[in-house]
Amino acid sequence: MRAVLMQRGKLWVDTVDDPEPGPGEVLVKSRACGICGSDLHAVRHTDDFVATSRESGGAFKLTTFEPVVLGHEFCAEVVDYGPDTQRKFSPGQLVCSVPMLFRASPSAIGYDEHIPGGFGEYMVLSEPMMLAVPDGTPVTAAALTEPMAVGLHAVNKARLGGHETIVVIGTGPVGLAVLTALKATHQGPIIASDLSPGRRRFALRQGAHAALDPSAENPFSHPDIDRTGDLVVFECVGVPGMLDKLFLDAPQNARIVVVGVCLQPDQIRPLIAINKELALQFVLGYGMEEFDESLRAIADGRFDVGPMVTSEVGLEHVDDAFRSLADPEGDAKVVVNPWLDAGGEPD
Amino acid sequence: MRAVLMQRGKLWVDTVDDPEPGPGEVLVKSRACGICGSDLHAVRHTDDFVATSRESGGAFKLTTFEPVVLGHEFCAEVVDYGPDTQRKFSPGQLVCSVPMLFRASPSAIGYDEHIPGGFGEYMVLSEPMMLAVPDGTPVTAAALTEPMAVGLHAVNKARLGGHETIVVIGTGPVGLAVLTALKATHQGPIIASDLSPGRRRFALRQGAHAALDPSAENPFSHPDIDRTGDLVVFECVGVPGMLDKLFLDAPQNARIVVVGVCLQPDQIRPLIAINKELALQFVLGYGMEEFDESLRAIADGRFDVGPMVTSEVGLEHVDDAFRSLADPEGDAKVVVNPWLDAGGEPD
Repeated sequence: MRAVLMQRGKLWVDTVDDPEPGPGEVLVKSRACGICGSDLHAVRHTDDFVATSRESGGAFKLTTFEPVVLGHEFCAEVVDYGPDTQRKFSPGQLVCSVPMLFRASPSAIGYDEHIPGGFGEYMVLSEPMMLAVPDGTPVTAAALTEPMAVGLHAVNKARLGGHETIVVIGTGPVGLAVLTALKATHQGPIIASDLSPGRRRFALRQGAHAALDPSAENPFSHPDIDRTGDLVVFECVGVPGMLDKLFLDAPQNARIVVVGVCLQPDQIRPLIAINKELALQFVLGYGMEEFDESLRAIADGRFDVGPMVTSEVGLEHVDDAFRSLADPEGDAKVVVNPWLDAGGEPD
Repeated sequence: MRAVLMQRGKLWVDTVDDPEPGPGEVLVKSRACGICGSDLHAVRHTDDFVATSRESGGAFKLTTFEPVVLGHEFCAEVVDYGPDTQRKFSPGQLVCSVPMLFRASPSAIGYDEHIPGGFGEYMVLSEPMMLAVPDGTPVTAAALTEPMAVGLHAVNKARLGGHETIVVIGTGPVGLAVLTALKATHQGPIIASDLSPGRRRFALRQGAHAALDPSAENPFSHPDIDRTGDLVVFECVGVPGMLDKLFLDAPQNARIVVVGVCLQPDQIRPLIAINKELALQFVLGYGMEEFDESLRAIADGRFDVGPMVTSEVGLEHVDDAFRSLADPEGDAKVVVNPWLDAGGEPD
């Protein structure tokens, strides 16, 4: 099959062996697969990413020794079944899956040299993990099930009452997923903050009532913010210094949900957080129920993800897309369609 | 009056002017006043303490230029009233008060050169802040109202369901106050951890079901800990490195209540907290209702503070007491009785 390979920061298209479904596994065509911030990080800082993946547990089996087919935000189409499968979906059925393959040990699909992700024509999935995409859902929208599950999980962990003032710091794909999930349920004011004008426009489209430039304006000084009421911050940047800056800027009793993944050690001044009695909730990933709910909410329109998909590219343009995603003014979410160069829809 | 003065880390007994109650203020005799960890810090690291006090807001008006009479954990006796007072208590009535005096601006009693604290014979209090000590309550127990309010507030902020497993890290006076408050209401197992054998004994007396030496044993490996159930940690040490160590040691989904006051910048690895989805609640001080509840719980025996008071000293021995409190094997709480050298009870 044709696939985009990645090794030590280089991306290229090549022909590799088709994956073969083992017991309990299903061969699928990758129909649409989003490029994630983690993919960008894996390409730009492969050594760091490999080291962190090794420290964070067994499922991320990336190394620098062999090329990998990235891609874990996918919508796929059932092609064929391996042995010991229940065959509950017909060939041609669109499916999503939590990007984990359960062999002898769990593997992260798209972060393991031996398990190709969605930036190739074919993949294998664990049958029990597969969810049918409701009829009529665009494949590019269904491909956002995984990142939207991340946003939904962050919102769930915040245990909102419905009327808190919300501040979302950083409106890249993670911040936009949080905003989209908030828009579906939250009643209180939602203020977004991002240095990029382009991202601020996306933030307004996905649910923010106001989107500010933090270099010009303190988001916590916005007139919609009742500093005496309940305030919840979603930190969606994940670089060193963000937490300490929030400690300084946030009002008394604010709750901070840490969604951005800061890979480096970070310095904080606990005394500031103590004086304000701040609370922090670190969050990661999502549960199976949240993944399922994310797909259903995308399908029935509660999660309006359409505007977030700004480009669809074929395999030959994945390398360009990774480069253009470095510019926050450009795309929000780029979705890879491995069959686009081959004439669009797969046969 | 006689008082212990402190300036630039030196403590000595001297005669100073009696304080005079202004409008809305009451002259009281200090009958018992605990030595607090903050007092030790103010003596050992005066410059740091003064700088931090200035940064943290207006009420702490300590400088290094004039001596101060420390002492903010007090039980006092009504002597006389200033102008514009309601005189609701008879002379001789024992009272406690939040250690704040409300003149043109709020001042922290015991941390302001112009407002003597409980390590002198007389003090002035703001009348609306005074609470009558219920009859029969020992003065040394009533003096623990303030530190016990700190422990009660930390427990309240943890929003416990009653059956979580609790781990208390550090069982100096703050950790003991947390344990004492937990003992009154909490049903689940309570594990304490402290390097000092003496403090571990106090921990067992004040409510811990087990008290471990963290240099020999990981408190989170104790057999009473159900690592799959809800777990709440009270961090009562407050030195750099404690939070990162807890990130490493604590189980998935643990909630950490940060009670210890770390005055220095601190380094954390957010990725560890993210992978475990940890939550942090920073806490400080207490509210008026909690102060009131603390006094009532001490008076009716729900907060069994008696064993925590290990010494009562007169003014001449305050300097020695500050030195001996450096040894964690010695005293838990030392209470100063300004009238002890003068023959015990005041006339």
